[in-house]
Amino acid sequence: MSTDNLRLAPGTPGYVIQNVQRASPAVVDALGRAGVATVHEAQGRTGCLSAALRPIYRGAQIAGSAVTISAPPGDNWMIHVAIEQLQDGDILVLAPTSPCDNGYFGDLLATSAKVRGCRGLIIDAGVRDTKDLAAMGFPVWSKAVSVQGTVKETLGSVNVPVICGGQLIDAGDIVVADDDGVCVVKRADAERVLTAAKRRLANEEAKRKRLLAGELGLDIYDMRPRLAEKGLKYV
Amino acid sequence: MSTDNLRLAPGTPGYVIQNVQRASPAVVDALGRAGVATVHEAQGRTGCLSAALRPIYRGAQIAGSAVTISAPPGDNWMIHVAIEQLQDGDILVLAPTSPCDNGYFGDLLATSAKVRGCRGLIIDAGVRDTKDLAAMGFPVWSKAVSVQGTVKETLGSVNVPVICGGQLIDAGDIVVADDDGVCVVKRADAERVLTAAKRRLANEEAKRKRLLAGELGLDIYDMRPRLAEKGLKYV
Amino acid sequence: MSTDNLRLAPGTPGYVIQNVQRASPAVVDALGRAGVATVHEAQGRTGCLSAALRPIYRGAQIAGSAVTISAPPGDNWMIHVAIEQLQDGDILVLAPTSPCDNGYFGDLLATSAKVRGCRGLIIDAGVRDTKDLAAMGFPVWSKAVSVQGTVKETLGSVNVPVICGGQLIDAGDIVVADDDGVCVVKRADAERVLTAAKRRLANEEAKRKRLLAGELGLDIYDMRPRLAEKGLKYV
Amino acid sequence: MSTDNLRLAPGTPGYVIQNVQRASPAVVDALGRAGVATVHEAQGRTGCLSAALRPIYRGAQIAGSAVTISAPPGDNWMIHVAIEQLQDGDILVLAPTSPCDNGYFGDLLATSAKVRGCRGLIIDAGVRDTKDLAAMGFPVWSKAVSVQGTVKETLGSVNVPVICGGQLIDAGDIVVADDDGVCVVKRADAERVLTAAKRRLANEEAKRKRLLAGELGLDIYDMRPRLAEKGLKYV
Amino acid sequence: MSTDNLRLAPGTPGYVIQNVQRASPAVVDALGRAGVATVHEAQGRTGCLSAALRPIYRGAQIAGSAVTISAPPGDNWMIHVAIEQLQDGDILVLAPTSPCDNGYFGDLLATSAKVRGCRGLIIDAGVRDTKDLAAMGFPVWSKAVSVQGTVKETLGSVNVPVICGGQLIDAGDIVVADDDGVCVVKRADAERVLTAAKRRLANEEAKRKRLLAGELGLDIYDMRPRLAEKGLKYV
Amino acid sequence: MSTDNLRLAPGTPGYVIQNVQRASPAVVDALGRAGVATVHEAQGRTGCLSAALRPIYRGAQIAGSAVTISAPPGDNWMIHVAIEQLQDGDILVLAPTSPCDNGYFGDLLATSAKVRGCRGLIIDAGVRDTKDLAAMGFPVWSKAVSVQGTVKETLGSVNVPVICGGQLIDAGDIVVADDDGVCVVKRADAERVLTAAKRRLANEEAKRKRLLAGELGLDIYDMRPRLAEKGLKYV
Repeated sequence: MSTDNLRLAPGTPGYVIQNVQRASPAVVDALGRAGVATVHEAQGRTGCLSAALRPIYRGAQIAGSAVTISAPPGDNWMIHVAIEQLQDGDILVLAPTSPCDNGYFGDLLATSAKVRGCRGLIIDAGVRDTKDLAAMGFPVWSKAVSVQGTVKETLGSVNVPVICGGQLIDAGDIVVADDDGVCVVKRADAERVLTAAKRRLANEEAKRKRLLAGELGLDIYDMRPRLAEKGLKYV
Repeated sequence: MSTDNLRLAPGTPGYVIQNVQRASPAVVDALGRAGVATVHEAQGRTGCLSAALRPIYRGAQIAGSAVTISAPPGDNWMIHVAIEQLQDGDILVLAPTSPCDNGYFGDLLATSAKVRGCRGLIIDAGVRDTKDLAAMGFPVWSKAVSVQGTVKETLGSVNVPVICGGQLIDAGDIVVADDDGVCVVKRADAERVLTAAKRRLANEEAKRKRLLAGELGLDIYDMRPRLAEKGLKYV
Repeated sequence: MSTDNLRLAPGTPGYVIQNVQRASPAVVDALGRAGVATVHEAQGRTGCLSAALRPIYRGAQIAGSAVTISAPPGDNWMIHVAIEQLQDGDILVLAPTSPCDNGYFGDLLATSAKVRGCRGLIIDAGVRDTKDLAAMGFPVWSKAVSVQGTVKETLGSVNVPVICGGQLIDAGDIVVADDDGVCVVKRADAERVLTAAKRRLANEEAKRKRLLAGELGLDIYDMRPRLAEKGLKYV
Repeated sequence: MSTDNLRLAPGTPGYVIQNVQRASPAVVDALGRAGVATVHEAQGRTGCLSAALRPIYRGAQIAGSAVTISAPPGDNWMIHVAIEQLQDGDILVLAPTSPCDNGYFGDLLATSAKVRGCRGLIIDAGVRDTKDLAAMGFPVWSKAVSVQGTVKETLGSVNVPVICGGQLIDAGDIVVADDDGVCVVKRADAERVLTAAKRRLANEEAKRKRLLAGELGLDIYDMRPRLAEKGLKYV
Repeated sequence: MSTDNLRLAPGTPGYVIQNVQRASPAVVDALGRAGVATVHEAQGRTGCLSAALRPIYRGAQIAGSAVTISAPPGDNWMIHVAIEQLQDGDILVLAPTSPCDNGYFGDLLATSAKVRGCRGLIIDAGVRDTKDLAAMGFPVWSKAVSVQGTVKETLGSVNVPVICGGQLIDAGDIVVADDDGVCVVKRADAERVLTAAKRRLANEEAKRKRLLAGELGLDIYDMRPRLAEKGLKYV
Repeated sequence: MSTDNLRLAPGTPGYVIQNVQRASPAVVDALGRAGVATVHEAQGRTGCLSAALRPIYRGAQIAGSAVTISAPPGDNWMIHVAIEQLQDGDILVLAPTSPCDNGYFGDLLATSAKVRGCRGLIIDAGVRDTKDLAAMGFPVWSKAVSVQGTVKETLGSVNVPVICGGQLIDAGDIVVADDDGVCVVKRADAERVLTAAKRRLANEEAKRKRLLAGELGLDIYDMRPRLAEKGLKYV
């Protein structure tokens, strides 16, 4: 069988794809510094995951290459398998094959993942030990916090495509996450999106200076004629 | 046309009302120090907005005069128009004309609003750049956090009445917001409500001292006879 | 009438049970240090309350003996009655007799409860004054934050069994709460559960050291043969 | 005091406004036949109540003049007061002054309202006896179905403005409701909206015939050039 | 071990209690005819299950003796065990031991249950084959409809106490369900509640006649003096 | 550019893929007769869409080939484009590119789609004119009912892959929908799944006969020994 994971349907169970291509660390890190809102705009307002995935603590801002996990509901066995596949700078991305709020992940798994260089977890399910995770600085974006644990009975897959937070994520895609939520950038688009993000940031920086100096968006963006044309009445 | 904004129906599009009367800054600030729970009680348990509007970070406590924005779903054009109308001590209050969770507001708009003296934003929709907003100390109470942006295509209005979080808010009304949520005080009621709030605070302070000294509410409020009369059994 | 509260149906109104047996403080405190996730596992994955009950601020971790309150919707009279029953190390546990998000509890009640040694509140309803509660370090796990207050008109009960967050809680049961949520341990099970929790913690500590040293869960738990047997394919 | 109910704030307690102007029955009935979606479009996409208000049974389609009720949470006393104010062709519109899902209304109240010519109930709260209401053909659009009843202790108001489902409704406004939800038409706009609705219906009927004959919207609305100009690619 | 199921904690796994006492069929059937709203009022506004449990089709109205099932999440094995315990006139009541929306029950299980005289299912989880269930007239009140099935791996219990929809239900308690929802009557209270329900129904019938004759609740209940005393103003 | 739609990312805007392969009508229709629950089981418990997508009326049961629509939020332009691509036996499947509850579809579009042989609509957004749609027998499974309409401003795509209800759906995949919800079968798997479904149906029919004759699942499935081995106690 080929290792081309694009040929496997999302969530196909029973596979661990080992040779995952990743974007260059410099590109990944720069996307992380740009943040979710900027990256999302820079790639044409696509790629944001469901707003139901919220950070377990405020202030983290990361980007990394996705190591994907497709897991049965209430079964976290594949997380152990995925941790072996982690490389420095990766982010774990877990999608259950049917909706489940169980706590799949806690501080022991986080300890192990962090030792392998993992930067965080995106999970369309639940997490626990959140106080410990915050204390050790391991950020998680999850749909739920739940002490209800999981079993280790049924195979899922690692690095097959998954649908997480309503987005299709392939292993090696870049995931960006901060207090605003989570956004995915397809690996093939990473450099193009970064270029657009940088342009956007430079543009925003210029705007910020003018706004700080007291100029109005109405004037900076020359909105007054169009507002008048649409018929806005000042009274 | 008259500038009496009370004659326009909530959300009437196409108007910017410029001459908005505001309560005295001293009254507004004192209401802010009293906080939402006290103000809400002081005006007879009315005026609290939907509990779905939550602060994007904890610890902020503000009051200000409402500059209202009625905006089409997914369109933040009117925020630019509203910023020009801001005076020192104002709070932006945005209500979409149909339900929408898009991120209408981010750090650039906050920069511009803050320069004009704006104290925060109440929005019955989404917001983004929340990490930056927290870093710059610009508080927001919103229904959602979403990186999904908006367009600038359709007119709304500024300073017309809006229904935000289930409450009718007129421009110039006083908005109080803290970790408990958001409450609106009609401008005409502001002094009366403040007087009641101060009385309440003084009363609470007296109670707090007695409670700290170990007295029980059962005795302070003389509840025992009425409990006995209702038939409460100690066993 | 007997003081055996087990014979009263959950939520029976009109009673204050005064002689509540409590677990030993040493056991209660040790369960608190173990935390919710560990305690929940240690007692066979039972006892966790609904994930809808969330802490009003992060970082608190407590355990205590339940002083239960069954309250009518929108009526917090019984909290005053319950505070008199508090002993050092107790936790208030309030369940309304029909669903209600009103703010039953604020900083005055917290002041009074804290003076009596109360460690926190678990409430399947709303709370307010959350900024003050955080400032005074009185933790609350609630279903809602709401400034909408309550009245004092109708009897409920104190220390009768209640159903709170979907769990049956008797007065004197041990309640453990942290950022992960809330878990109840029946008083009769407390020592047994603590023993299991300690064993679990020791075991986890040993695992944590091996994981920090770079060992994989796959090897520590000897998962590879069983994964192979189930047919997991590495490609 | 004047009977001009527009001067009272929404939800002001303690008043029964008796002289409510209503639109002509012919206009009201014609709006009802047009249905919610058409009326909503005909008045510029405004006036629809929250989608959380759903019919308790399918197939009813009504319009009527609003007799508004502002009620305390969990208190249905004012419904009795409102029923006396009903005229043939009216619809009861109830908004609680704080969120509440209790069952305010059942078959006895429906019997009484129906005798007075009432066509249905719009309620931003709960209702019960839904099987009986369906059997007697009394339609209700509500936020909840709940057997949890209410008390009769506190005054609200009848025919003051209310905010119901996020819309400001004045007594005498026209309410249209069907399986799609509920829409309000301001009394002053009723004839204008009806004219627009009729034009719209005629236009739709013409379109429907062409569509039934197999023509495509792409051609009827001449969309192909604009799609091509925007760059749509057929492959 | 004693067969007194009251001594087992809710959800204790591994037991099938066989000797369940039931109320007299005549009492059960009469409670069913009274319906949920009336029964709930007749027992002092207690016993209604969460409004989240909704009927899968409209129009059914049943009462029966509870055969309770405590089931692990995603595991419907115990339903097969419970069916053997069914007697004519029973209702199955299933509560999962942690929140779960899976479809535990479909047309085959319904066929088997119906053959044993079962009148319906109350389930704080999911159900499927809803079209078939409607066609065969087997009513279900559930929290969800889901095709996601379950396994048969882990023991639960039959006829131990369960917490279902937020109410403690013992085997043999009477469950009443209709379009308004579900209410439980403790077996020991059944005759008393029925007497109160009958009185209530008779009273309502008398009221209905007067209301149909055009009398107002304001007069029937003599509300006018108290409204006046509270200060209601007619303008 | 190739017409192989599998190479386009889900939701890529600006394309209409015209040459969509469909499964044989006989297979599609047989899957429809099997129904959602059976098909879902027959393909290994995969493919069910989010339970949030509910039928607008009960009793419809359909299957068809997916004509997919990726649409911007609040913009239904692409539905007109998609209707031209419909063939007899197709089902429209619409996914917005960001969450939106607006009413994208009503009776005029349904009229046009039905004339082209369309069997229904699956939409991860809102729909309106639901009474008309029910009257004309055009079934819809939607996330919302909303009269709030849409615009026609921005390109989406037709027959590109979409993520709808959390499942990846390619044009030509088979969609099955009934009262239980919606399930997708990949076109390549259709015959295999149908074979499994037929075997399952035959098996169920045999079981149904035995259950109707009074046999118990406990005996038919030989569950007693395993229950005993697990330690189930009958008391």
